[in-house]
Amino acid sequence: MQIDIEPYIEGVQAGNRLLLARTITLIESTLPAHQQAARSIVDRLLPKTGNSVRLGITGVPGAGKSTFIESFGTMLTSMGHKVAVLAIDPSSTRSGGSILGDKTRMEKLSVDPNAFIRPSPSSGNLGGVARKTREVMLACEAAGFDVIIIETVGVGQSETTVASMVDFFMVLMIAGAGDELQGIKKGVLEVADTIVINKADGDNVLRAESAQKEYQAALHLLMPQSPHWNPPVLTCSSLKSTGLDNIWQTILDHRNKLTACGELAEKRRSQTLDWMSFLVNEGLRDWFYSLDQVKNTLPLLRKRVEAEQISPTAAAAELLSILEQEKN
Amino acid sequence: MQIDIEPYIEGVQAGNRLLLARTITLIESTLPAHQQAARSIVDRLLPKTGNSVRLGITGVPGAGKSTFIESFGTMLTSMGHKVAVLAIDPSSTRSGGSILGDKTRMEKLSVDPNAFIRPSPSSGNLGGVARKTREVMLACEAAGFDVIIIETVGVGQSETTVASMVDFFMVLMIAGAGDELQGIKKGVLEVADTIVINKADGDNVLRAESAQKEYQAALHLLMPQSPHWNPPVLTCSSLKSTGLDNIWQTILDHRNKLTACGELAEKRRSQTLDWMSFLVNEGLRDWFYSLDQVKNTLPLLRKRVEAEQISPTAAAAELLSILEQEKN
Repeated sequence: MQIDIEPYIEGVQAGNRLLLARTITLIESTLPAHQQAARSIVDRLLPKTGNSVRLGITGVPGAGKSTFIESFGTMLTSMGHKVAVLAIDPSSTRSGGSILGDKTRMEKLSVDPNAFIRPSPSSGNLGGVARKTREVMLACEAAGFDVIIIETVGVGQSETTVASMVDFFMVLMIAGAGDELQGIKKGVLEVADTIVINKADGDNVLRAESAQKEYQAALHLLMPQSPHWNPPVLTCSSLKSTGLDNIWQTILDHRNKLTACGELAEKRRSQTLDWMSFLVNEGLRDWFYSLDQVKNTLPLLRKRVEAEQISPTAAAAELLSILEQEKN
Repeated sequence: MQIDIEPYIEGVQAGNRLLLARTITLIESTLPAHQQAARSIVDRLLPKTGNSVRLGITGVPGAGKSTFIESFGTMLTSMGHKVAVLAIDPSSTRSGGSILGDKTRMEKLSVDPNAFIRPSPSSGNLGGVARKTREVMLACEAAGFDVIIIETVGVGQSETTVASMVDFFMVLMIAGAGDELQGIKKGVLEVADTIVINKADGDNVLRAESAQKEYQAALHLLMPQSPHWNPPVLTCSSLKSTGLDNIWQTILDHRNKLTACGELAEKRRSQTLDWMSFLVNEGLRDWFYSLDQVKNTLPLLRKRVEAEQISPTAAAAELLSILEQEKN
């Protein structure tokens, strides 16, 4: 049965939250008919997309991401912005349903008429979830949201995946909570456009400022991603709502600088093409590794490589020879 | 004409340098007959491989990599080690032939009977060069070299590729030579098992020690790759040959710790399997993107994606549908 996509397109473009939610459900569905409908809807919405500030936020557990987004998002809606929060959190499966969890985490924002909170479905499939997040973001843009916040808890490759779909990527930290919290996961520091030391309040202010200096020194040793942007280290308190305006100003500065030199447009263009390549390569691997002959050959080849009976090069050549047979 | 591989196998196993060099030439050749012979030779040599300390070295231009390898390698041969130096340097194409260049760079080591220096061929194809380096390393091991040093100048993805084939990866730096030298390329700091501040001699000692502290602080903020190893920051002078013994001791400490907990064996096992997957995925992409239908369809699809007429997801699905036709 063909799905009538017109009501979805009209509804989303009119900013109808119910139809936006239903569109997202189609996007996230694994049914082929839903996927096809979702692709057609997103294609039709494309002309209305691209007009938001796309923010990615990650942070170590305990850094206070939810409280930060609650305070930061509330500040933005009070300034007149429409804010969509997309959370990628596969762990929510275990905590018994992410929707209830996220809405409880962000009490004020979840009832704010200018905010839209959409947790990831509890599918447990991070790759799949993150893959859909990009299209969910586009749907939200078409519905008129002008700030999109994509939150990730940092499982697997989720940070770099999120960083590859946003304009500005923020790493939330806290000061001096033990060594295990200080360690930032591989590659994350290097995709950060800013590091924010949260919980800079009460007794913690001095420690936050000293952590700020430490991270400033560390970032100085890394080559910045853009010649036009040196990632600053900021402090804030989500609890006291201090420093949040400065963070927003930093995001706008970044935007102005990168827009002026054409880097933002180029970044988005290459993100889009990279995303297409990523999906093609992933689909190609899925296809190849599900061929009967590959499924039959691979386990033995891996065993022979592990036993050092055959080199990885020879094993790869043998596996790839299946493609030639495939062609004939 | 079939190549008789027996003389190569016997020669390499006997430590014959001429036949080792000829084997490497086969490995690096792009002729299918040579490649097939090389694969058979490497497979036969496999039982004799794996007994070396595999070191990767990178560093910013001007950090003194050649002088370091000259001094460090000479120290190792004087201790009774047999040292092979494999250099991945695509820029050598431009400087007019890498062999002369590398031999001049390492005057003492190049005439040392216990050292073997093999620069990358001047093919200009970094991916190809690095791909062969792994097998060249295996041939050197089979020829009895017990320390393999793989040097990279850090073009493109070469550092992470080299890091993925060695036991220990070292980043060579120098102190305070201006900001452009301080910046370490993305991802490199995070695969480092040690950072060595070179040129810690004369007027430079204090600056080197202060750089050492800076990098120690920065590394402290990154999560170590292994729970059994915190990358230390060391200083040395290749000119005065100071600190080199300490670096070798650090490498041996790392080896002992990672051997004791089984991590070294596991690291090599997963490096080998990852390498196989890498080659398969690369071969798969080469095959797909050279299909006529893909070559005909892709440029237009990319244009439509760039013009935002179609989403990356829909474009990827369209391109992948070619696989279904391929099957029938």
